[in-house]
Amino acid sequence: MSADWHLAHGYRYAGVPCGLRPAEPDRLDLALIVSDTPASAAGVFTRNRVCAAPVRVSRDRVPTARARGVVVCSGNANACTGQRGLEDARDMALFAAGGVPCDPEQMLVCSTGVIGRHLPMAQIAEGIHRASEALEPGPSALERAARAILTTDTHIKVATQAVTIGGRKVSVTGFAKGAAMIGPNMATMLAFLLTDAAVGPDDLQTLARRAADGSFNCVSVEGHTSTNDTLLLFANGAGPALRGEGLVRFGAAVSAVCTDLAKAIAADAEGAAHFVTIEVEGLRDDAEAKCVAKTVADSALVKTAIFGADPNWGRIVSAAGYAGVEFEEEQLSLWVGDLLLYHSGTPQPFDAATASAYLRNNREVSLRLRFTLGSGRCTFWTSDLTYDYVKLNADYTT
Amino acid sequence: MSADWHLAHGYRYAGVPCGLRPAEPDRLDLALIVSDTPASAAGVFTRNRVCAAPVRVSRDRVPTARARGVVVCSGNANACTGQRGLEDARDMALFAAGGVPCDPEQMLVCSTGVIGRHLPMAQIAEGIHRASEALEPGPSALERAARAILTTDTHIKVATQAVTIGGRKVSVTGFAKGAAMIGPNMATMLAFLLTDAAVGPDDLQTLARRAADGSFNCVSVEGHTSTNDTLLLFANGAGPALRGEGLVRFGAAVSAVCTDLAKAIAADAEGAAHFVTIEVEGLRDDAEAKCVAKTVADSALVKTAIFGADPNWGRIVSAAGYAGVEFEEEQLSLWVGDLLLYHSGTPQPFDAATASAYLRNNREVSLRLRFTLGSGRCTFWTSDLTYDYVKLNADYTT
Repeated sequence: MSADWHLAHGYRYAGVPCGLRPAEPDRLDLALIVSDTPASAAGVFTRNRVCAAPVRVSRDRVPTARARGVVVCSGNANACTGQRGLEDARDMALFAAGGVPCDPEQMLVCSTGVIGRHLPMAQIAEGIHRASEALEPGPSALERAARAILTTDTHIKVATQAVTIGGRKVSVTGFAKGAAMIGPNMATMLAFLLTDAAVGPDDLQTLARRAADGSFNCVSVEGHTSTNDTLLLFANGAGPALRGEGLVRFGAAVSAVCTDLAKAIAADAEGAAHFVTIEVEGLRDDAEAKCVAKTVADSALVKTAIFGADPNWGRIVSAAGYAGVEFEEEQLSLWVGDLLLYHSGTPQPFDAATASAYLRNNREVSLRLRFTLGSGRCTFWTSDLTYDYVKLNADYTT
Repeated sequence: MSADWHLAHGYRYAGVPCGLRPAEPDRLDLALIVSDTPASAAGVFTRNRVCAAPVRVSRDRVPTARARGVVVCSGNANACTGQRGLEDARDMALFAAGGVPCDPEQMLVCSTGVIGRHLPMAQIAEGIHRASEALEPGPSALERAARAILTTDTHIKVATQAVTIGGRKVSVTGFAKGAAMIGPNMATMLAFLLTDAAVGPDDLQTLARRAADGSFNCVSVEGHTSTNDTLLLFANGAGPALRGEGLVRFGAAVSAVCTDLAKAIAADAEGAAHFVTIEVEGLRDDAEAKCVAKTVADSALVKTAIFGADPNWGRIVSAAGYAGVEFEEEQLSLWVGDLLLYHSGTPQPFDAATASAYLRNNREVSLRLRFTLGSGRCTFWTSDLTYDYVKLNADYTT
């Protein structure tokens, strides 16, 4: 896998243990990413009113033309931690800047893990120091960084793209963890994209927002927006400067990496037995389509039906009906896989055994809702709702 | 129980079997309620764009000053059934009107049960005929009607109130079934309130809407708005005519009955191990408070934490944070039962064992979120998310 990665030039990585989970002292839990030169950086953050200290700190520092990197810890979200939490987040960036060295404002910071606990700053400082000394380029170092940001994920999530623009190669290297608040008291989807293109911070911010809207904002596990969600996109200019058509193709590569990471997050959702792709088309605009897709994706009744291999089209159609989008039943048709179950407002005769077998025998399944109101569309990804989800989220004790 | 019921004068009830569930041919599944004289009637209906045929028919007939009753079947929702479903719903009212006798427009109609199947109209016609002949006043007949509307409910839900206004007694008699779409492919909350007050249809509609907003619209199981939700309120004028202060007191009695029924629905939610009361106060207005309360109530992470007796305040606070209501963390405090876990944005030291024991040892538990932004408030009721919920909703096969 790592042999195929396209690694952007001019970045170094580290992942080290600093003991944030006492029961797992050797687990990698602190990641550091540094650009060799000042880079444009853009960010997209949780819209939760209750947002973690590192979100507040990083949000104030992007977009910027002179970022040098980001420091990340996992196992502790540094959320709901008050003024001291803010100081701790700023100190994480300060310690990381010391190792570069650079201005503390040039470092960004993220955390993910348990809410409401203060960071053990002595361990963090020591860990950042060791990470600074361990920084190196290449896939092994990237893999350690990608591993150090995980919480309840079962594997690392890396996606890359390369495009040749004006005869020069541009690489987009991304890695991510988690989905919404899927974990026991865990918070956060985190994603980092590193590119060697030369792109100004405002263009980068526009690209980051657009890429997030079509990827991380189109994935949900249980619809619980976390306190820590963060996407950071760096462009250090080790490669070509982009504008016009080149910028468009670069943006497509960024979106492709984000989409791969978002799908990997939904596919690795806690307790999930199905990875579900929901295609909605034919609404007045993309926003309406996303609204319907998200409502279907978040319905516990739809999710349990898929877990139970029940082709229960009534739950899907009625979920669409309460999405807040105006339509008449006659304007909706529904497919589960290739099977048309509901056509222009009328239930279709179908073989329940075949439909059930499709859901039972495939881990990856699809729903398609087609309206006749326009050209708005959205692809959304989610998981099912299983005994294991309930178990994982009920059996946790503080 | 039934000995204490306050029964409004001038209504007769019936509940009979008509075989809508082939496996349970003797189960009561058709209810008929008739007012001896033309009554004011008001209704509140699902806002789902996909709404059942009986909802479309009844919605067009209220408010009215001359309703004679309602016919209800359970086991088949007559939803997503197209033009034929509409004709079937109108025919149900027609058959019921024939037995009164009255104009078909004076009869309302409701259904609840499986979505997407046509009604067996020969059985329905025969059942309505027998129900018409079985109509009688009194608690035994009411109990049969209350039983005939049930689907996956474990018991009938009846609530009544009596108020003396101007020296004369006014009774409000209510019964209901279900909650949102809690059941396997079942749709519907249905509630019927019968009163002997004399109230005009417009006043009655206003009272019905207000009562629903503070009761049935403040209860959710999984947040899936059904295709069939219906509240009907009748006032036949067998008792005193109401205006001014009398109307206010009557409205309070109507609201009290609706609240009792809504709480009974949440308490009987499928698979539930906890009945959860969520009190939100101190927001700018009641709508903001309801928005926060509903978001907390619908969070799968909050629900699984309560099932697991985990005093996981981070999930509750972060759910409030994504409700779409503007606030700062410092403006929020949170109690679980009597335990203050989060005060003005700061986690409080608390004994986790005590908090966990509170959740483990009580079926009825409460959450209180206090903001410092105004006097808006809301009380909301929900259930937890359990293995049994997943089992009941996954194991159903069409």
